[in-house]
Amino acid sequence: MIVVVGSLALDSVKTPLGSAEAVLGGSGAYFALAARIFAPVSLVAVVGRDFPDQHLALLAQHGVDVAAVERADGESFRWGGEYASDLNQRTTLFTHLNVLASFQPKLSERLRSARQLFLANIDPDLQRDVLDQVRGPELVACDTMNYWIASKRDALVRTLERVQICVLNDSEARELAGEANLWRAADAILTLGPEIVVIKKGEHGAILASRGERFTSPAYPLEMVYDPTGAGDSFAGGFIGYLAAESAAAEGSNRSGRAELPSSAVLRRAVVYGTVAASFSVERFSVDGLVGLTRADLDRRAEELLGHARWDHAAVQ
Amino acid sequence: MIVVVGSLALDSVKTPLGSAEAVLGGSGAYFALAARIFAPVSLVAVVGRDFPDQHLALLAQHGVDVAAVERADGESFRWGGEYASDLNQRTTLFTHLNVLASFQPKLSERLRSARQLFLANIDPDLQRDVLDQVRGPELVACDTMNYWIASKRDALVRTLERVQICVLNDSEARELAGEANLWRAADAILTLGPEIVVIKKGEHGAILASRGERFTSPAYPLEMVYDPTGAGDSFAGGFIGYLAAESAAAEGSNRSGRAELPSSAVLRRAVVYGTVAASFSVERFSVDGLVGLTRADLDRRAEELLGHARWDHAAVQ
Repeated sequence: MIVVVGSLALDSVKTPLGSAEAVLGGSGAYFALAARIFAPVSLVAVVGRDFPDQHLALLAQHGVDVAAVERADGESFRWGGEYASDLNQRTTLFTHLNVLASFQPKLSERLRSARQLFLANIDPDLQRDVLDQVRGPELVACDTMNYWIASKRDALVRTLERVQICVLNDSEARELAGEANLWRAADAILTLGPEIVVIKKGEHGAILASRGERFTSPAYPLEMVYDPTGAGDSFAGGFIGYLAAESAAAEGSNRSGRAELPSSAVLRRAVVYGTVAASFSVERFSVDGLVGLTRADLDRRAEELLGHARWDHAAVQ
Repeated sequence: MIVVVGSLALDSVKTPLGSAEAVLGGSGAYFALAARIFAPVSLVAVVGRDFPDQHLALLAQHGVDVAAVERADGESFRWGGEYASDLNQRTTLFTHLNVLASFQPKLSERLRSARQLFLANIDPDLQRDVLDQVRGPELVACDTMNYWIASKRDALVRTLERVQICVLNDSEARELAGEANLWRAADAILTLGPEIVVIKKGEHGAILASRGERFTSPAYPLEMVYDPTGAGDSFAGGFIGYLAAESAAAEGSNRSGRAELPSSAVLRRAVVYGTVAASFSVERFSVDGLVGLTRADLDRRAEELLGHARWDHAAVQ
């Protein structure tokens, strides 16, 4: 079982191709809807009184365990943003934390046995609170954002000491490492604790670095992007989901204490599945691109991406 | 024989890792030094009275035919630029066209039989003047820049109607096509005439698009970039050079009129060799990264890049 601790939000998004008002969003929603394609997922999050039941019903319908979604007094987390014409530049119009401001994730007895734990982008102190609650998960991964890097760097570093995989985007990696070169930035982050760093590059795909391993996957070649919101969380969901499915399939693997890291071949495929999950996510507004997706859909795009990037190294003639 | 029509310059460059004053530069120099690794290259360019003989001697020493480099009265083309810390942002400090302003490329009888012609970034009217001088080359490719896209768009479009391959960078492609999405930008440029569009993305590699073919190559994973100047021209040199070598090796190929386009497999390898040539170029200032390079050096990095980006698509158990 994957446990994700993240946000549920009501997003208002404007892109060159349309807009959406107060729709289902948040790192937890995107991550869970991508990861559940591969393995059972439980979502730990908080919503306010105004959060439509139908959003939770949608998550549940698609196999996401929402029993640990807490409904608190107050309004839900609301975010508003607008994308420039090239979709690479985003302006945040508003961020109302509301009930998220006092979120104190508490894991039930059942969730403390999470096999994979994903700490989505929340306060690094809360990320560590969650880490204190789980019992020897096989894999712990986290995301973060520029806000925490700038305002709570020490707390974030203490979290990074305790995770195996750090997933973040290129500008975050550069800022966290103080390094413009992404490979050097990844190496610098590896010295902070994680054994694996995955850097998401949007339309340029993603890279993975660990000691002795470097991998680049291009993005799936999309012609139309409707809404980039949640692409990074969908990537993380596909990535961690794939690792969970591989782990479940590899029966008899070492479950005592910290398990062995996935093999290079598995990690590389996980990056590809992350990039493919993100490609579906950005083709629709809100989480619509992930709803109803099947493993076969992802397999097909992964296969296409393999063909897209394939070349062989024959000598001249 | 490859003929390249481009510039020879005295560049003054400042990057976060150092600086260089009035060193050998220009699209023609970078292109020729990369392409000559694969096939004979003749350079058509103009220099002023101040252009050091040693620069021409260096080109000649490395197998570039400089017989068609004209020495005109006046000063050489001089360019000065500075790169920001992430190397993706460049500020042009000065551009003194000098003798380049009145450049009128004239091809000798011998050069008119060019098998491959590369029209580096010069005035699109001059690019067409050169096209009027050659006799049925097997392959014509061109580059351009934002300046011509903005100021001489119609002239550029008339050039594009007559080339098979257009090589340009991502911001140029977006501007030329008026499309933010690079695949759609490539498709839009294909409607202007070229059968193949190659878009260079710097640290993110390069993509190739033709009708029915799409390919992405990541960049060779470099940790240190000393001077990005000339990366695009080095890419083009490696790309066209590889195509020329493949064409020479494929004896008995159709030489009457416009030849068949290279196969998908050959085009993909050409993109990889372009990206690898660029990786060597940016590791040193000026053209120093290209000087002395051998085909074996490029083969080795191409092989490494293959391993770097390789993954296989096994189903979960």
